[in-house]
Amino acid sequence: MFISQQEFLFSVIKRLDITKNILAVKLGVSLCTLNSWLLPEDSAEFLIMPTTIKRFISKQLLCDKDNIRKYYLRDSIAVNGKNHLLSVDQFHRDSLEDFFRVTDSMKPISRRQKISRILEGAVLGNLFFEASTRTRVSFGAAFCRLGGSVCDTTGFTFSSMAKGESIYDTSRVMGGYVDIMVVRHPEQGSVAEFSRSTNIPIVNGGDGPGEHPSQALLDLYTIRTEFSRLGKSIDGSSVVMIGDLKYGRTVHSLLKLLSLYKGLKISLFSPPGLEMPDSIINYASVNGNHIDIKSSLEEGLDGVDVVYATRVQKERFENPNDEYFDKKFQIDLSKINSNCKKDTIIMHPLPRDGRPGANDLSTDLNNDNRLAIFRQADNGIPVRMAIFAILLGVDHLVNNSLHDVQWSLPAYIGPDDSPFYCL
Amino acid sequence: MFISQQEFLFSVIKRLDITKNILAVKLGVSLCTLNSWLLPEDSAEFLIMPTTIKRFISKQLLCDKDNIRKYYLRDSIAVNGKNHLLSVDQFHRDSLEDFFRVTDSMKPISRRQKISRILEGAVLGNLFFEASTRTRVSFGAAFCRLGGSVCDTTGFTFSSMAKGESIYDTSRVMGGYVDIMVVRHPEQGSVAEFSRSTNIPIVNGGDGPGEHPSQALLDLYTIRTEFSRLGKSIDGSSVVMIGDLKYGRTVHSLLKLLSLYKGLKISLFSPPGLEMPDSIINYASVNGNHIDIKSSLEEGLDGVDVVYATRVQKERFENPNDEYFDKKFQIDLSKINSNCKKDTIIMHPLPRDGRPGANDLSTDLNNDNRLAIFRQADNGIPVRMAIFAILLGVDHLVNNSLHDVQWSLPAYIGPDDSPFYCL
Amino acid sequence: MFISQQEFLFSVIKRLDITKNILAVKLGVSLCTLNSWLLPEDSAEFLIMPTTIKRFISKQLLCDKDNIRKYYLRDSIAVNGKNHLLSVDQFHRDSLEDFFRVTDSMKPISRRQKISRILEGAVLGNLFFEASTRTRVSFGAAFCRLGGSVCDTTGFTFSSMAKGESIYDTSRVMGGYVDIMVVRHPEQGSVAEFSRSTNIPIVNGGDGPGEHPSQALLDLYTIRTEFSRLGKSIDGSSVVMIGDLKYGRTVHSLLKLLSLYKGLKISLFSPPGLEMPDSIINYASVNGNHIDIKSSLEEGLDGVDVVYATRVQKERFENPNDEYFDKKFQIDLSKINSNCKKDTIIMHPLPRDGRPGANDLSTDLNNDNRLAIFRQADNGIPVRMAIFAILLGVDHLVNNSLHDVQWSLPAYIGPDDSPFYCL
Repeated sequence: MFISQQEFLFSVIKRLDITKNILAVKLGVSLCTLNSWLLPEDSAEFLIMPTTIKRFISKQLLCDKDNIRKYYLRDSIAVNGKNHLLSVDQFHRDSLEDFFRVTDSMKPISRRQKISRILEGAVLGNLFFEASTRTRVSFGAAFCRLGGSVCDTTGFTFSSMAKGESIYDTSRVMGGYVDIMVVRHPEQGSVAEFSRSTNIPIVNGGDGPGEHPSQALLDLYTIRTEFSRLGKSIDGSSVVMIGDLKYGRTVHSLLKLLSLYKGLKISLFSPPGLEMPDSIINYASVNGNHIDIKSSLEEGLDGVDVVYATRVQKERFENPNDEYFDKKFQIDLSKINSNCKKDTIIMHPLPRDGRPGANDLSTDLNNDNRLAIFRQADNGIPVRMAIFAILLGVDHLVNNSLHDVQWSLPAYIGPDDSPFYCL
Repeated sequence: MFISQQEFLFSVIKRLDITKNILAVKLGVSLCTLNSWLLPEDSAEFLIMPTTIKRFISKQLLCDKDNIRKYYLRDSIAVNGKNHLLSVDQFHRDSLEDFFRVTDSMKPISRRQKISRILEGAVLGNLFFEASTRTRVSFGAAFCRLGGSVCDTTGFTFSSMAKGESIYDTSRVMGGYVDIMVVRHPEQGSVAEFSRSTNIPIVNGGDGPGEHPSQALLDLYTIRTEFSRLGKSIDGSSVVMIGDLKYGRTVHSLLKLLSLYKGLKISLFSPPGLEMPDSIINYASVNGNHIDIKSSLEEGLDGVDVVYATRVQKERFENPNDEYFDKKFQIDLSKINSNCKKDTIIMHPLPRDGRPGANDLSTDLNNDNRLAIFRQADNGIPVRMAIFAILLGVDHLVNNSLHDVQWSLPAYIGPDDSPFYCL
Repeated sequence: MFISQQEFLFSVIKRLDITKNILAVKLGVSLCTLNSWLLPEDSAEFLIMPTTIKRFISKQLLCDKDNIRKYYLRDSIAVNGKNHLLSVDQFHRDSLEDFFRVTDSMKPISRRQKISRILEGAVLGNLFFEASTRTRVSFGAAFCRLGGSVCDTTGFTFSSMAKGESIYDTSRVMGGYVDIMVVRHPEQGSVAEFSRSTNIPIVNGGDGPGEHPSQALLDLYTIRTEFSRLGKSIDGSSVVMIGDLKYGRTVHSLLKLLSLYKGLKISLFSPPGLEMPDSIINYASVNGNHIDIKSSLEEGLDGVDVVYATRVQKERFENPNDEYFDKKFQIDLSKINSNCKKDTIIMHPLPRDGRPGANDLSTDLNNDNRLAIFRQADNGIPVRMAIFAILLGVDHLVNNSLHDVQWSLPAYIGPDDSPFYCL
């Protein structure tokens, strides 16, 4: 009985219950190469798989089903062979799906139903060279929930760096103390420099105007989770991004991640001078995604699946009385009711400026189920747990490490939480 | 064989080994109602218990002896149905006794003989918007001793609140990260506002001139523990409060708690302008308690069971050379020897001003067993452990969770500790 | 069959597999007394051991082999009967060897192969009254790796001390909250004052120009470990100390510890005005050790086994253009190649000033295996774990408490780490 190379490879993927991405990593070839092997034989790009690979699959891979999922994801997103998370550019569509599967497996823990001690003995260096209380606590709490311990530092600089110490020395010394580091730093590129000086995993916790990958991942994970509840798919959906699109690193990174999906309709609306950079728009205009710049807030909101709002900082404006820092650009309940659908979701990276008259998401949305900003913030925990588990190579062990919590919390975190969203 | 309703209910309390308070919570009635059921049948206030309640007791409560103590105390002290600890007003006499029983069960842990992992997996957000190193460490260490993890923040404000974020947003977001929060804030009422924005338990760690309930609870627990050693009872005892009785929130809260006892003789002595507010005096003048304002320090000290001294801050006086900031108002060994009994105990919420000439407790008392200030500070650990265990619903599980420590400490914490007070 | 007292005692030491130091502690006699019992019978200083001691050895010590190593080291280095680590003066040669054996037993943990929960339930108070991010993290991470929890404080002063509280009160209160404290303070002697006010173990984390014993211990442990790899012995080796020898407390403490060894050739080279104090030179000129002051950097480096460099702070010089803050005093690869051996090791307490032209270790040594500065920093973890385990009396239990880690790290911490130095 003859089976084609295509049939053979798809049967392997099915029998091992893995993605194409994992199979490529396991075979040590690029996803692109694997894709060419998976084409019909009469396709122009079709390539024949080497016999050594075929033998490796039959003699080893299929016999080692238990270990197949071990350490794959961190290998697949590695940076120069190192297990860092520096940028959303490390992900492609398949590894993103794998990442979200791991995140899903953290949900029983982040919902306080189960605990895990899988990272027992591990120490996180939570290095914040710039204040960001909540991001720091979010990373710290996520690590604790996996059984690890956290050493925090805050403040613009290490005492040692003030004495002329290089980032190289600081990074190498800290790597000798802890098992993984989150680094937040006001200067773009400094976290990458940190990561080059150590093999210990580094998570970029935000480097000035650069990247903040965990935020983009939790944003996309939120869209995925909300869409799953609503029976929608990210492919083909419509998203509007509103606010400071020039300096807001979260919208840049999210747009890059969204470009891995297909057929999206993305709208942008920002005050003049705060437009999305062309480089990002060009980066994201692939896979049949369409990016459109809107000329009014109402036009931007019209009929979208996702509203992603960001804060506009008054300091950005030359003239602080500028009309764009004005209530008419505030996204409030009446604008949402007039322009959006019943199943639109409204997101924001937080903090939002809740003062009256601020050009930001209005607090009159707090009781509307469409406001997903707190569900989005909550997702920071499972997403950051997934990052830690993956980089430390225990993502495949989490499920078997769970046991019941003994303490108990109320059913809902917030007094205004939606009925469908309980602990 | 006929038994009266009173006999029946008392036998239930005895068989289940619970307090009246717990029984009331279990039956879903107020303590007041239960009390009327417990009266002799010929009493004017006597009420007949509904048959449904009687059946519930016989068919369910008495058959479910193992679960009877579950989650009761946190229900009994709840604030608007939420498990917060915001004020001493949440306690009545019975729930206070229940609280102290839980605290007693923490003693093997706080004495470093046993460890518990009952809060494993739980994360405390220790949010100090105002510096208070020791209170922060005391809450943090208490949580760690139950097996939990702690995320600390210090500083006047969150970085996010500086950007216009509301307390509502901050509280709700933090509630998504952690399982319980201690909040200290310089503004009265801000902790209550924090608590309204989340269902996750909040412990008031001090809100400016407002409340600091854990301090009042550890103060009263200290009196109870010391009296137990001395064979005394709080009902009918005499207490003098000395120092800044106007701004000192600890004396206000302690006086409120003391008012739950009976027949107390309470004396007050303060420099002019720092007197106890009338509202508190009126609040506490119940249950046959007598409150008396003294005109000299010596008169105040005379024959009391408890001296509760507080620090007088020089800044409170218009004229800093005022005689009241003077050694003659310092409570020292000779004044104690002249006026107090052999079994008087001397308390202070700390810090005390130990500089020569300060109007505060003198350091020449350090070797006197009556000085209970360090035993009092030590009690902060079991009291705060009890608060956490109760609010997270594991207070009934602590006893069965204990196991031996492997490390060992000296028999006494301090070089001047009393022989009766060893680890 | 007759055996001499000397033969008897040596057989006891061998059978119990302990050092002379431990035996002395177990017998309750000084090491000096034990040494006199161990002399040949015809020696002038020979003393006959009391019969009660001999009976104690035969009837109890030899029958209690399992417990023999319990709690001995902390008794042997105790300060006034308390288990503090305040100064390197607490060690003699034997207890130093015992200390390093305990440190060796921590290596599987610090290399992230094993985890231990031996300090579960214990809380460290990490009290830094002076900023030192890395020392704080190093102590904190070491404590976490033994299963304990950490409460950090940073900043010049406690909020309570600003209100006039004495060190006595602060220390006693903190001792009631935590199980062991690391104290760093800018004023010499303040840590000792802290230690007199509590029986809870205190580790001196650096008291201004005073002591920093954990640094000296990790320095010496590094020499011992590197020499073990190179097949060298500390006795008889040659060490040069370079840089600020006047204010550098690490070189003072290291020189004191080295003086416990024999036949060392120690060279000193420093800019004028920053010479090693005579008191330290006199202290260390014992046991046949020879201390020599060199007049040039090259002369100092010539043929030594260990180069110990320290940072020279520009602020120390009256004239900041002084030639001694000059590249010609920088220790770089060419000077090391010209003057040192293939197996010389180069050390530095860090931070090093990595800016071009700084009078410090040059960064062009980063790829040279002789540069041991990061291996030295890494040793801070097992050394500080040993300190905690010893002071809390669990050093003998560590080996049996180990179990495998579940997470995994890369084989090397740093990208430039030597092949012989892997996790």
